[in-house]
Amino acid sequence: MKSLRIGLLGLGTVGAGLVQMASGDGPLSTIIEIVGVSARNRNAARPVDISKYEWFDDPCALAANPNIDVLVELIGGANGKAKEAALIALQNKKHVVTANKAMLAEHGVELAQIAAQNGVEIRYEAAVAGGIPIVKALREGLAANKINSIMGVMNGTSNYILTEMQKSGREFASVLADAQRLGLAEADPTLDISGGDAGHKLAILSALAFSGAPDYAAISLEGIEEIEPVDLETAQFLGYAIKLIASAQAHDGKLRQSVRPTLVKLNNPIAQVDGATNAVLVNADPVGTLTFIGSGAGAGPTASAVAADLMDLAHGDARPVFSGPCIGREVFETADKNSLAAKFYVRFRVADKPGVIAKISDTLARHQVSIESFLQKPPPSTQNVAIVLTTQICNEDVLIDALHELSGLDEFVDKPLIMPLHD
Amino acid sequence: MKSLRIGLLGLGTVGAGLVQMASGDGPLSTIIEIVGVSARNRNAARPVDISKYEWFDDPCALAANPNIDVLVELIGGANGKAKEAALIALQNKKHVVTANKAMLAEHGVELAQIAAQNGVEIRYEAAVAGGIPIVKALREGLAANKINSIMGVMNGTSNYILTEMQKSGREFASVLADAQRLGLAEADPTLDISGGDAGHKLAILSALAFSGAPDYAAISLEGIEEIEPVDLETAQFLGYAIKLIASAQAHDGKLRQSVRPTLVKLNNPIAQVDGATNAVLVNADPVGTLTFIGSGAGAGPTASAVAADLMDLAHGDARPVFSGPCIGREVFETADKNSLAAKFYVRFRVADKPGVIAKISDTLARHQVSIESFLQKPPPSTQNVAIVLTTQICNEDVLIDALHELSGLDEFVDKPLIMPLHD
Repeated sequence: MKSLRIGLLGLGTVGAGLVQMASGDGPLSTIIEIVGVSARNRNAARPVDISKYEWFDDPCALAANPNIDVLVELIGGANGKAKEAALIALQNKKHVVTANKAMLAEHGVELAQIAAQNGVEIRYEAAVAGGIPIVKALREGLAANKINSIMGVMNGTSNYILTEMQKSGREFASVLADAQRLGLAEADPTLDISGGDAGHKLAILSALAFSGAPDYAAISLEGIEEIEPVDLETAQFLGYAIKLIASAQAHDGKLRQSVRPTLVKLNNPIAQVDGATNAVLVNADPVGTLTFIGSGAGAGPTASAVAADLMDLAHGDARPVFSGPCIGREVFETADKNSLAAKFYVRFRVADKPGVIAKISDTLARHQVSIESFLQKPPPSTQNVAIVLTTQICNEDVLIDALHELSGLDEFVDKPLIMPLHD
Repeated sequence: MKSLRIGLLGLGTVGAGLVQMASGDGPLSTIIEIVGVSARNRNAARPVDISKYEWFDDPCALAANPNIDVLVELIGGANGKAKEAALIALQNKKHVVTANKAMLAEHGVELAQIAAQNGVEIRYEAAVAGGIPIVKALREGLAANKINSIMGVMNGTSNYILTEMQKSGREFASVLADAQRLGLAEADPTLDISGGDAGHKLAILSALAFSGAPDYAAISLEGIEEIEPVDLETAQFLGYAIKLIASAQAHDGKLRQSVRPTLVKLNNPIAQVDGATNAVLVNADPVGTLTFIGSGAGAGPTASAVAADLMDLAHGDARPVFSGPCIGREVFETADKNSLAAKFYVRFRVADKPGVIAKISDTLARHQVSIESFLQKPPPSTQNVAIVLTTQICNEDVLIDALHELSGLDEFVDKPLIMPLHD
């Protein structure tokens, strides 16, 4: 096993976690040597001593330095310095190990091509689901399988907010504000709560499982901003939890990729993961269904994943960047966004109740959408009544047509909220 | 990626599953070529056509054949033909891929030495937890971690029996007989129901996680034969499921390895796995706790694991047989069998109730064992009363001493049943 000389770009919690592992007495310390580091602020207070490493003000100078074999990129962001430094490292025939899901999801194909041209590797176990070795499981452990679907809870911030809303009965905005105060949500939380972050991770897993190339633009994204306490309460009553589910499903030559709030049956292990825990469920032939659960973020889990990538590189392990079960398989078309066939949860807010239920029922019936259950919740703080229904299995576009017809009615206060049900 | 020529030893369900994958259009078919096969009966009815492969009556002749690069050993058994053929293959510088947990648990060290001397690999993802890529996760995904503990449900037959007893309220012997009729338990079920099979798997995972060498003899084994419907019912009432738990824990330089029925809190994902599903929970630094769930047996899952090993070999991946997080770490002593500190469930069968509870309470109090709960169940079919108690955390040897003192009493019909509780 050869020793690797590391250039470490980024010294936040994960970078510091890696420095700690590299300086400890564990196996990582015997195979890597950190030679240079770069971060935004040289003098920031850090839990680890970086004085013994060469300091680089310029990430690109670190990436190009002839004394390093591997650039570990931990600064994040789809573009900017992260991508610039990664490209320079690859062009200088250095491997890149990264936790940067946005960069891989949006520029993975370009980066993979440059890595191939230069005969080096890009490794990114830390980019998806933190400490869960899901990239390795897909690209190696299930390499001989045909993947049917992937689904998971992959964004800790959203899951924390939904879990807290469920427990406390509080509103989205109030729980988000708390999460920001506690450092569990960013000042600008958009990427987390609107599904973008989970979408980045899904794009990477989908590339491994289905297509060989991340295609973030093909993913339909919907966040958790519209979820109200009444939805969590009603879901629980129906035997479901609401989770922000990232899923990719291959069916009839088409690939459906989405991130959206989904009602997941309580006995599904995915329904049970709370807070920052991630869960990924893979269905494949011939292995069947596998479930992976673990910490999706944080210094320790992420550093563990980066370290595993470094140890693989030290072992001389070499594979195409997005190799996996997909290689040599069919090319998928992108499925129509609203062609999902499922049971659906629909929540209406109406100003005035009498007669509304009849109008809803009639309209859905005319569109051949069968109702499975109808529930009404008293208004908690407003004068508006929440009416919830669940449908039998139907096509989402048919349901949307029916709801569109209903939207002209005076009684409707808001656009209805639609979420699929998943057993 | 090089193409591998395979000698396939064993053509049962898993062997047939592998033939199917190798003949299909998946990635396995492009990297391996089955050249020779051997099984007990050449003319057995099989779901796959083996006429195009060279037939070997003698497994050892197949293992020694110069036309093969890898022996895939799927006949099982710690000794006999499986081991003989594996040794011959290794000595002839052929890799061995095997699903044989018994052989590795009992002769892993010897085989690993011979593999190392001959510069070849032994791969065994299929030997533990079927399709779950847990061997890969431990040896590669968590390679930079310090493993604290492993626990899991790793024997499908036992778990099926416990699940059925729980659902139906029926006795062990009756459910076992059904399982045998259904082909879910072997004619001689000892290895499954007495913990030996789970012990074999644990020995392998422990070797990867802690010691570098499987030590089956160091594992304390207890099966599910003594579990009665009253235990499952009482456990459920207390908020637990009874599972046959294989566990290895490192603590204070000592390693405790056991297979034993354990009450697992219902909200633990391990408590939820039914039937032939396996679950493995790993706790490690810095990754935290990871849970892996999937099919523990069957043609598909097992063939998937064998195929992944073959694809790794085709990639030229080479590692010491039991390499993993353990390498370079401390040497563990075996912990005393009964030194476990835990809460315990104790079930007594007594002929006659009055006065017994007082005697039990007094004796436990004198041994400083505090009782958390006391439950009595009416006798379902016998005249004997089941009395169940749970303790506060205590040392098992202290509890055993107390129960030993009680065992002299006339009222006691059977030896008490003791199981630890696990949150």
